[in-house]
Amino acid sequence: MEKLWTPLILVNLKTYKEGTGKRALDLAKKAEKARDKTDVCIGIAPQYTDLATIAKSVSIPVFAQHIDPIRPGSSTGHVLAEAVKEAGAIGSIINHSEMRLKLADIDAAITRLKELDLIPVACTNNPKVSVSTAALEPDYIAIEPPELIGTGIPVSKAKPEVITETAKLVRQVNPKTTILCGAGITKGDDVSAAIRLGAKGVLVASGVVKAKDPYQVLLNFAQAASRL
Amino acid sequence: MEKLWTPLILVNLKTYKEGTGKRALDLAKKAEKARDKTDVCIGIAPQYTDLATIAKSVSIPVFAQHIDPIRPGSSTGHVLAEAVKEAGAIGSIINHSEMRLKLADIDAAITRLKELDLIPVACTNNPKVSVSTAALEPDYIAIEPPELIGTGIPVSKAKPEVITETAKLVRQVNPKTTILCGAGITKGDDVSAAIRLGAKGVLVASGVVKAKDPYQVLLNFAQAASRL
Amino acid sequence: MEKLWTPLILVNLKTYKEGTGKRALDLAKKAEKARDKTDVCIGIAPQYTDLATIAKSVSIPVFAQHIDPIRPGSSTGHVLAEAVKEAGAIGSIINHSEMRLKLADIDAAITRLKELDLIPVACTNNPKVSVSTAALEPDYIAIEPPELIGTGIPVSKAKPEVITETAKLVRQVNPKTTILCGAGITKGDDVSAAIRLGAKGVLVASGVVKAKDPYQVLLNFAQAASRL
Amino acid sequence: MEKLWTPLILVNLKTYKEGTGKRALDLAKKAEKARDKTDVCIGIAPQYTDLATIAKSVSIPVFAQHIDPIRPGSSTGHVLAEAVKEAGAIGSIINHSEMRLKLADIDAAITRLKELDLIPVACTNNPKVSVSTAALEPDYIAIEPPELIGTGIPVSKAKPEVITETAKLVRQVNPKTTILCGAGITKGDDVSAAIRLGAKGVLVASGVVKAKDPYQVLLNFAQAASRL
Repeated sequence: MEKLWTPLILVNLKTYKEGTGKRALDLAKKAEKARDKTDVCIGIAPQYTDLATIAKSVSIPVFAQHIDPIRPGSSTGHVLAEAVKEAGAIGSIINHSEMRLKLADIDAAITRLKELDLIPVACTNNPKVSVSTAALEPDYIAIEPPELIGTGIPVSKAKPEVITETAKLVRQVNPKTTILCGAGITKGDDVSAAIRLGAKGVLVASGVVKAKDPYQVLLNFAQAASRL
Repeated sequence: MEKLWTPLILVNLKTYKEGTGKRALDLAKKAEKARDKTDVCIGIAPQYTDLATIAKSVSIPVFAQHIDPIRPGSSTGHVLAEAVKEAGAIGSIINHSEMRLKLADIDAAITRLKELDLIPVACTNNPKVSVSTAALEPDYIAIEPPELIGTGIPVSKAKPEVITETAKLVRQVNPKTTILCGAGITKGDDVSAAIRLGAKGVLVASGVVKAKDPYQVLLNFAQAASRL
Repeated sequence: MEKLWTPLILVNLKTYKEGTGKRALDLAKKAEKARDKTDVCIGIAPQYTDLATIAKSVSIPVFAQHIDPIRPGSSTGHVLAEAVKEAGAIGSIINHSEMRLKLADIDAAITRLKELDLIPVACTNNPKVSVSTAALEPDYIAIEPPELIGTGIPVSKAKPEVITETAKLVRQVNPKTTILCGAGITKGDDVSAAIRLGAKGVLVASGVVKAKDPYQVLLNFAQAASRL
Repeated sequence: MEKLWTPLILVNLKTYKEGTGKRALDLAKKAEKARDKTDVCIGIAPQYTDLATIAKSVSIPVFAQHIDPIRPGSSTGHVLAEAVKEAGAIGSIINHSEMRLKLADIDAAITRLKELDLIPVACTNNPKVSVSTAALEPDYIAIEPPELIGTGIPVSKAKPEVITETAKLVRQVNPKTTILCGAGITKGDDVSAAIRLGAKGVLVASGVVKAKDPYQVLLNFAQAASRL
């Protein structure tokens, strides 16, 4: 797949009120503006209900936050890969720590995404699980130690070895996988530290969505990333 | 709540390919046309990704297929009541047999929907569970014997006592609850039979979505309902 | 069913290390001794692996902590009602806040237990959910506000209205249901308060299992209960 | 770990009525007898409630059918590794197709089992998921194409490449993992075919438990395995 970006700053809007509806669109536009200023790729993962509107309104890549490992059919309330694609998503986060999947379902979800030419970003919680996930061949792996999510303590400082070890081990199993890291990232320095340790980008959420000035934060992130 | 409709024909698009994206919008427009022709209320429950577009394009009530019992916050991949509301939904199906919830979560989801003035349509599988659900005070209960879903054998014929008993028992616990029934409904006769047995409408899916002429089927349903 | 006891003190051993294996058996013997001293019924709910040994060794009623709503067949790793019965259990807790079930599964689990003449003790989290559960006709309902579990703050003090309201509302729907309450109970006074508010007994865990002298605590509980 | 057996015939009693209580013990004794006759290792995985009695009564290895990835504490209704160990199990099946786990939980469950010197037998559904699982370093991987479970059509005939490919790929990632295969095994020939294709044993259920003469079936299996 040629369309992979590095570095990538992927902003997960979760179900934050600051990341819902009009405010989600507003954030997407700020992300686009920061991207334009730096030429570092910034992606955005809004809620399902906001995918179509955002994908139509901005030129940055839009991801779903999750898909179910299903085919079209009788799955009321589930999230169909075809539906997020038609809404304009170019990929999906899967197995986020707030939406963990069964192993066989991660495999099936990655397969479904690839069938539709969508980009899987599979989340993991430690180096061993990252290697395990790399065997399923997602395009991106985003490693986030769950205990740091939302803390403001960056993984690059609290547990740098998590990034270096993941990068080393995953390379052995599946060198085509691109590694992002997440949890606790709030400053440009956190982004450069992550990249220096072997990540090719970051998965961020509250650090951007809950910031006073999300545009400025994203600009800092992107500038830090572009300097490397 | 004054905005409850009876009779109500609620069309669940599930994750059918015929009910995704542009084809979902097309179905919604047909439902609107059938409603205009008969003045029987027809609601539509598309996938999350299609909610905003459909709600903007038609004047019939639009429902989500599910919401999670969460408040705004860190719930990646989950479905927030605020988000479906801002997308234009006026209510949500919950606890569909393909998306069963824990009891405490049904209670919490109904509470969340009502806080936002959204209409809960809670699905149930038998009369006893319907009474149990009525105690949680959803606006609508939609009873569907799971073994009949998608069969084309209508509950009004296969198990008429399921409807009559549910209607009788629920009335004792919570007379304000409006009862719909579902499973196997494909013809106008099935709709009239259901209403004669005590339901105030139907929850349908494949009988409409997979029909050769969904508009005609909906028209038949609505005409059958309006005659009673 | 004639075999229901009131008052009932039911001790849930959870998966505490103090409630596993030999230590579980030891606790069961202490419970039996406290029962013998006071003639107040004390039941015990050990882990599945300890059911058979404990049921063989003591004369107090033994409950499972959960069963799955399944029939004999292909359900690797699940808990079969027939199996807990053959191991000597005379009933089972279901829907504990640490093991919540889907609504349709609570209904099915209660049905399965009753088919085998086993006693269902269904846990609930608030008065409304208790009424909802009463419609499914378990023999016992054990109401436990989840936020108080393990705190040492008794529901009878922190939220007495939860007990009184549950007792009042459940009586209207299903007067045959016996109400227990739980969460935060550590002293005899907590037990008498609960009973005065309308409960017919208590569901306890850490207050007994983690006590320095579980026998003495149980004796206090039983004496408090027998005085009323 | 020195205590690994090859070949291993592991009999999963599931929740079959023929594999519950006294009948489970009876099967365990037959398995022991067949082992004594052939010196091929036969293990048995009964329900939790039967673990202690069986482990006390026979000298063959006894496994749990599942454990939860928990530590001792407040986990009502869950299955604690310490508890199955104290009951006499020497390991546990995990992630059976009827009890699939989240990826992070498979990692945690394997870690918990190894901490207690218990043997993890991790089930998988295809070669890719087997490689993914091998990265988590269970002692055994049991590959079972879910569509063949309970069919009587052996994987060695229907999908021999599933076994050969798994054996080849897993060896590259983690050569210490021992591969079993399962699904549809009913005859000695199925066992020898599996071993010839690269498995070191089999995971069986209905083929033994539901057989007219389980002893004879196990004897055939063991003799077929010992010949290779």
